[in-house]
Amino acid sequence: MITFVNQFAVPEGRDEEFLDLWTQVNAYLAPKAGYVDHALHRSLDPGASHRYVNLAHWDSVDDWRAAHDEGFRGLVQQPQWRDFPSQPAVYDATPVHAGPA
Amino acid sequence: MITFVNQFAVPEGRDEEFLDLWTQVNAYLAPKAGYVDHALHRSLDPGASHRYVNLAHWDSVDDWRAAHDEGFRGLVQQPQWRDFPSQPAVYDATPVHAGPA
Repeated sequence: MITFVNQFAVPEGRDEEFLDLWTQVNAYLAPKAGYVDHALHRSLDPGASHRYVNLAHWDSVDDWRAAHDEGFRGLVQQPQWRDFPSQPAVYDATPVHAGPA
Repeated sequence: MITFVNQFAVPEGRDEEFLDLWTQVNAYLAPKAGYVDHALHRSLDPGASHRYVNLAHWDSVDDWRAAHDEGFRGLVQQPQWRDFPSQPAVYDATPVHAGPA
C-alpha cells in the first residue's frame, strides 16, 4: 500500500474555488481500481504557503499511476488549476518508524 | 487534534545518518504533553526532493508548539541537520473532505 501526500498552495480567500476543483478531481479518482481512502486537511496557519494537504492511500504505485489517465489530465489541465499548484509525493504506507512504541 | 506533516529533503545514500538524527528528535518529542502518535514514511520515488515524511498527531497546536522548546532547538541546531532541510506544516486533524463516502 502507498501513502500519497499532496500539498496545495491555495491563496487566502480562494478556498471555495479550490475545493470545487479538488472535489471534481477526487470524485473522478475515488472509484478507480486501487483507491483506498483519502482525507483532505486544512492548514491551521493562515500564512502557510500550502494551506491544504490530501493524505490518501492506494493499493500500489501502479494503481495510483494508472488512475492518473487522460480523463484525470483533462480535469487538472483546466486553466483554473494554475492558481493552485500542488506538490505530490508517494511514500511506502508501511512506516520506517512509528509510535507510540 | 492536529495533523503535523513534515517532509525532509534527504539525499540518496544519507538515509542512515538522517534516521539517526530524526530518531533522536522523535525520542525527545514523543514523551511531551499532547503527543498522540507519529509515522515516518520513506518515499517510493528515489528521485524525489523530499524522501521522507513524518505524519504525526498532537492534541493541539499549543501542545505541539510548547514541545518545541529549548531542548528541541538544541537538538535540531546540530550542524548535521543542515543537510536535511524540512518543510513542517500544521493541519486540522478533522478533514475538510474524506472518503470513501
